[in-house]
Amino acid sequence: MSSSPAEPEALPGEPGSVFLAEIREQPQALRGLLAYEPEFARVAATARKRGATLVRIVGHGSSDNAASYGVYAFGLLPQWTALRDSISLTTYYGADFDMSGSTVLALSQSGRTPDVVDYVSSARRRGAFTVAITNDAGSELARESEAVLPLGAGVERAVAATKTYVNQVAALALLAGHAAGRGSPIADGLRAAAEQLAEAIADLEERVMPVSRAFAFAGRMFVIGRGVEFGTAREIALKLLETCQIAAEPLTATDLAHGPVAALDRLFPVWTVASDDRALPAVVEAAARVRETGATLVASGDAADRIAGADYVLPVPRPREALLAPVLSVVPGQLFAWAAALARGLDPDRPRGLSKVTLAR
Amino acid sequence: MSSSPAEPEALPGEPGSVFLAEIREQPQALRGLLAYEPEFARVAATARKRGATLVRIVGHGSSDNAASYGVYAFGLLPQWTALRDSISLTTYYGADFDMSGSTVLALSQSGRTPDVVDYVSSARRRGAFTVAITNDAGSELARESEAVLPLGAGVERAVAATKTYVNQVAALALLAGHAAGRGSPIADGLRAAAEQLAEAIADLEERVMPVSRAFAFAGRMFVIGRGVEFGTAREIALKLLETCQIAAEPLTATDLAHGPVAALDRLFPVWTVASDDRALPAVVEAAARVRETGATLVASGDAADRIAGADYVLPVPRPREALLAPVLSVVPGQLFAWAAALARGLDPDRPRGLSKVTLAR
Repeated sequence: MSSSPAEPEALPGEPGSVFLAEIREQPQALRGLLAYEPEFARVAATARKRGATLVRIVGHGSSDNAASYGVYAFGLLPQWTALRDSISLTTYYGADFDMSGSTVLALSQSGRTPDVVDYVSSARRRGAFTVAITNDAGSELARESEAVLPLGAGVERAVAATKTYVNQVAALALLAGHAAGRGSPIADGLRAAAEQLAEAIADLEERVMPVSRAFAFAGRMFVIGRGVEFGTAREIALKLLETCQIAAEPLTATDLAHGPVAALDRLFPVWTVASDDRALPAVVEAAARVRETGATLVASGDAADRIAGADYVLPVPRPREALLAPVLSVVPGQLFAWAAALARGLDPDRPRGLSKVTLAR
Repeated sequence: MSSSPAEPEALPGEPGSVFLAEIREQPQALRGLLAYEPEFARVAATARKRGATLVRIVGHGSSDNAASYGVYAFGLLPQWTALRDSISLTTYYGADFDMSGSTVLALSQSGRTPDVVDYVSSARRRGAFTVAITNDAGSELARESEAVLPLGAGVERAVAATKTYVNQVAALALLAGHAAGRGSPIADGLRAAAEQLAEAIADLEERVMPVSRAFAFAGRMFVIGRGVEFGTAREIALKLLETCQIAAEPLTATDLAHGPVAALDRLFPVWTVASDDRALPAVVEAAARVRETGATLVASGDAADRIAGADYVLPVPRPREALLAPVLSVVPGQLFAWAAALARGLDPDRPRGLSKVTLAR
């Protein structure tokens, strides 16, 4: 996406057809990523060998949302501390950290995000093991990095990311799995998730229709997740901002109670991402608090049925490994964004003022 | 704030009088913190001696916003890596990190936030140097921690934090300063900032009035900051959510371009926090992008005059140390929240459904 409001690239077909096609391609995109599994095993082995076990993840937009997931993938599989590192500390302020014990994971679909490239160059000089995770293995980001992990998602044409986001999540899980000596079960889980997704998408396309019509005039929303699913909440909120012009704000289930709940009323709906893991009680409690305000409540995720009193339920299949739930749970949000944009007379293929590669700093 | 929508504590006087009184008390609160400077020097010395230079900061709500600032204070003064650590990884998922090289800074005004207390207990068992930064040195959090740094802000009665937030920011700067061997200039800078604030507040109270009337019907906003000021943007957005029921979302200047800019139009105003430091060009560029959409633009901060074409300008004094700008730059946002709540017929002392201590997990 560029800083000038250039005309979006001309895309063929009906409004939203490219965005929808890429949502539907996600099972195939996941299989494309898995073809690179040996590279993930090699990069994980290098990180272990170098003792580079503080994981600094950087990216903007959807890539930064995937990074939120990465904090949990590395925390729970190899039990390495991972952080969404500040890009500006390095690129604007020139902070001079010793990064010799760090692995940098730089997420950029295009591999052209300028300050991510700058960050990687600096981090490499400071001793970090630098890894580009990108959909373009020939990009500037790939050249600046010591190692490259291709996303293998195929060309993404819609401005709003879908299949590259899911593949970033999967890539972080796969790398963390190999770092923990659990690469095979994670790869198997991803392969199974691709099949589950392929079976679920058509049904979800139907299910989002009545919800999207009901939300045609919504101006604002909260999207609630916790733990492993907070990145999913962030990504769904971003899709709603980009494609539907809804002021959608992601919150952890606990942060909702620390102030924002005061803003809720019947015109301020809430989307909850409920997956069957240890953070689920916090989401269930947050949903109960939302219901007390009279706000309309959407429940999605593989534990959507655990959200009592939800006005709309968008369930997804349960993955083989609980940690892989975000590969599936983002999809109802993507499809809702597609359908709600159309219900509002907007073209989800062409968000205003954006283009595919963002060169803003 | 409790999970049940209990009646807010009865507060005396006119609507908003307690909130306003605590905003006005901030210079005095800062002086209260500085009385504890020797304790900050001791804690910094202990962290250095133990080699506990990975700084894990935890808190919810305003405390988490202050943590965003802490990432920069530690990154720029002692050049230690600091992160807003995931609480749920430890408390829900039971991740078992070795924390022997970590200092934990646990932020809680009341010292009673349950999952922050749980996190500290776990981190201490895992070898972290645990430090409570709290307004109640006799609280459970203080008892669970190895060291206590009192905020010294005096009792805070309004539900929406003001003086304790500013003192948390100041506390992080002071501790980072001592860790870097620069405790004295930072303490002097904070003392000077207290004087600057005392002189500026009355004028700011006047200046926010026309802005708050113009925003009486605003339903949504973005609040933009970058780098050192991102925490300020988060805190201003939270004040607007809590006291004005505005769906206010904080964004970094760069993240605005990665999608959310597509949501802007004339009914979606944007607040920018512009301070004179190295990240300012990113904020200036973001503001230019906002203006192209026709959105109403507010510019605050000590470099507010650098935001060309702003509809409203809320300047603050320039601090002696650029890194201390957030102590001053949050105040226009606090005062705007107070005035805008009153303009909307709401009582900023009594946000709906909240109470002072949040026991939600």
